[in-house]
Amino acid sequence: MRRTAILALSALLCGGAAATEPTVIPPEAMAAAATLRERALKDDTAWTVLEALTTEIGPRLAGSANDARAVAWAQARLRALGYDKVWTEPVTYPRWVRRAESAELVSPYPHRLVAAALGFSPGTPRGGLTATVVAFDSLDALKAVDAAAVKDRLVYVGVRMQAHRDGHDYGKGSAVRTRGPAVAAAKGAAGFLLRSAGTDSDRLAHTGVTRWDEGGRRIPAAALANPDADLLEAALRRGQPVRLKLALDCGIEGSYTGANVIGEITGSGRPDEVVVLGGHLDSWDAGSGAIDDGAGVAIAMAAGHLIREAAPRPQRSIRVIAFANEEMGLFGGRAYAEAHRDEVARHVLGAESDFGAGRIWRLEASVKPEARGAIDQIMQVLAPLGVERGAGPGEGGPDLGAMHALGMAALGLTQDGTRYFDWHHTANDTLDKVDPAALRQNVAVYAAWVYLAAQAQGDFGSAPGAFAGEGGE
Amino acid sequence: MRRTAILALSALLCGGAAATEPTVIPPEAMAAAATLRERALKDDTAWTVLEALTTEIGPRLAGSANDARAVAWAQARLRALGYDKVWTEPVTYPRWVRRAESAELVSPYPHRLVAAALGFSPGTPRGGLTATVVAFDSLDALKAVDAAAVKDRLVYVGVRMQAHRDGHDYGKGSAVRTRGPAVAAAKGAAGFLLRSAGTDSDRLAHTGVTRWDEGGRRIPAAALANPDADLLEAALRRGQPVRLKLALDCGIEGSYTGANVIGEITGSGRPDEVVVLGGHLDSWDAGSGAIDDGAGVAIAMAAGHLIREAAPRPQRSIRVIAFANEEMGLFGGRAYAEAHRDEVARHVLGAESDFGAGRIWRLEASVKPEARGAIDQIMQVLAPLGVERGAGPGEGGPDLGAMHALGMAALGLTQDGTRYFDWHHTANDTLDKVDPAALRQNVAVYAAWVYLAAQAQGDFGSAPGAFAGEGGE
Repeated sequence: MRRTAILALSALLCGGAAATEPTVIPPEAMAAAATLRERALKDDTAWTVLEALTTEIGPRLAGSANDARAVAWAQARLRALGYDKVWTEPVTYPRWVRRAESAELVSPYPHRLVAAALGFSPGTPRGGLTATVVAFDSLDALKAVDAAAVKDRLVYVGVRMQAHRDGHDYGKGSAVRTRGPAVAAAKGAAGFLLRSAGTDSDRLAHTGVTRWDEGGRRIPAAALANPDADLLEAALRRGQPVRLKLALDCGIEGSYTGANVIGEITGSGRPDEVVVLGGHLDSWDAGSGAIDDGAGVAIAMAAGHLIREAAPRPQRSIRVIAFANEEMGLFGGRAYAEAHRDEVARHVLGAESDFGAGRIWRLEASVKPEARGAIDQIMQVLAPLGVERGAGPGEGGPDLGAMHALGMAALGLTQDGTRYFDWHHTANDTLDKVDPAALRQNVAVYAAWVYLAAQAQGDFGSAPGAFAGEGGE
Repeated sequence: MRRTAILALSALLCGGAAATEPTVIPPEAMAAAATLRERALKDDTAWTVLEALTTEIGPRLAGSANDARAVAWAQARLRALGYDKVWTEPVTYPRWVRRAESAELVSPYPHRLVAAALGFSPGTPRGGLTATVVAFDSLDALKAVDAAAVKDRLVYVGVRMQAHRDGHDYGKGSAVRTRGPAVAAAKGAAGFLLRSAGTDSDRLAHTGVTRWDEGGRRIPAAALANPDADLLEAALRRGQPVRLKLALDCGIEGSYTGANVIGEITGSGRPDEVVVLGGHLDSWDAGSGAIDDGAGVAIAMAAGHLIREAAPRPQRSIRVIAFANEEMGLFGGRAYAEAHRDEVARHVLGAESDFGAGRIWRLEASVKPEARGAIDQIMQVLAPLGVERGAGPGEGGPDLGAMHALGMAALGLTQDGTRYFDWHHTANDTLDKVDPAALRQNVAVYAAWVYLAAQAQGDFGSAPGAFAGEGGE
């Protein structure tokens, strides 16, 4: 069955808006959105928010003391920005703690190496784990090897990522990180190391979560900074046994209940229908979480604020969500979807910003066919900002992906990620990596589409199961 | 008195070559140098040497175990490269040791900061030093302030460096580092911090030496990574007292005798006259000393090797020097000059490579007027490599500067330093920052000029006191 047929059928079956009425945005809303856009390009609210978050709080590892401080900070900030309602919703997850980490090449040449434990890695025995390194140039090569070749060894997988505007190499880089440790553990390896999933050549390792098999073995797992991976490979090329010591003091300490922080501007006409935007409030711990994802939180908070300040009050409500613990498994997004699964049809359109602070260059949409004209209208307002229309699905971003999977119509707003993976998940994720002008452009895009969606006559196709199996427009 | 008059007079007084005979390079030497140049552009000896030094040894802090390993390595390497004579000469200096260092913002917002102790900094009391920060935007502002304003405070000086091809902003950046701590100490400050003297925005601090006043107070002194300096300044802008804790475990542990490592290719005609080139073998400890100054050592070793392999044996001897402890006060260069001060006239021409591995774009020369034609001849061979003739003095580089000050004719071969201060004195000083093609270009330049100087008929004006007071050509 063709996708359009599926969509039409799902709309009929699930009680979405009548399939025959096109969704239309009124001319006065178009004019107001253009005004908002121009105002946003001169407004530094997002910068001010992001500067405050990174200066006054800093890193926000899920379940840490700073995570709790950030939840309080975000509520206060939303109130100060004029949101009508501010609340939290609980999010529970295993609390992973990083205390200390080090790595060194022991032989044939002693070197201190820069390494970062992966999220959910267990610690090594106290004093560290020393073993011979066995290297692979791909995850597939590791998967294919006999267990005897890696038993009690330190498995190293070295895959290089290249920089692209859409960041597509992250797929292969992050696959090594998320799946490599479990594969190595199942074969009896003592530990796992990867070349950082990053496009830089800085002595800063890229952390990130790994995913264990249910009930499977778990082994200490860490990423080496790219120059340190080069050094390890240079040592390995000499053909002598290479021994490496990894010392990780980290692990899971019970569970923790954090919170999604939510602010809402109440709609004047259809307050029960919401347009949803957001970012995630948690971050990794080495940097100050400026690009991942303080920027997304700041863009969303500022966009809602600007609509509140600078446009006629929207018909629908506007809901900004600062999600909890995206980094270690989308816990905030999944908790939100679980709590709101009966309200999918009332989530009119949604998108999360979580790809840094580069300029938005592409809009993709997962909406019902009758709403495509409204997306074209949104594009009229966004095109002067350098945004192109893309043909893929709009998946709503990592945390709103769960709501989209339940049937919420969603946009994908692709930022320029050329340098994103230079800094992502490292100590280099700091405010200086954000260009204030690019941040303003993001706010202009979000303020415009959110306002237009709130004013649209007709919906975008949100309905339970509406976009199941969608692979593109 | 004009400089040319001084030169002519000094040549007469000091027994330099007759001032009336121009120095000339024979046509067969010009042809051989052009052949050497082309061969060097296809030769990876320097890369192999640099890869080995950074892989098999790594960082080489003066007086460390790696320093001693590097001295042994360099001798073995020079022998393997075919140098006729290889020896060491002792260099004694205070041994400064870095054991641990950390910094944190205590209030108003807790943050871990990235900091590096400066060379010759004393340690803090065990457990660290916590004090209120008082900030200055220049060294002059610190010099001008009343002592009462900084007494018992942590002085911070924040000066930003911009990147330039010739790296000239390092003057202002390094002035803060070398003189700031002594100035702050004299006014009673508890400690000293600076914004790293670097052009990057990485979470890696730029260390470097500081210079105390003889018999003066010494206080713990460290550099903050640039993003951490940004954070400190953001906290200071809020107008509340900012308290910072600095914990440095470092200091001077007696004295150490290391070595300049020297390799010589014996001249066939005038073996007692030497053309001198080199780099410094020591490095700071956070990186692997690839650009500062493994590259210089590798360029010099490879240039001499290529002359030995690929050209008719030179008339004069060619001396490659891998200097000891440049970083903490030019100890190797000064020891060499002290040991060879009676042989200035026999040091025909010299230049050290110590500005990374970027392409050489400029040649400057401090030679007698009668040798300018020979420099023009050298330029004929170098011009195809993209080298321009500069008008300033050729000072011979940091370590050969002492011999030049005694009267040795010298070249200055300026490399492209646009990115040098992104990585200089940080953990990012690693092999991946070196472009193999640029490294070959450096070797081509050195092999050519060294060979041409060795074959020149007539000298370049080396004589005791020959270039005293020279400010340019």
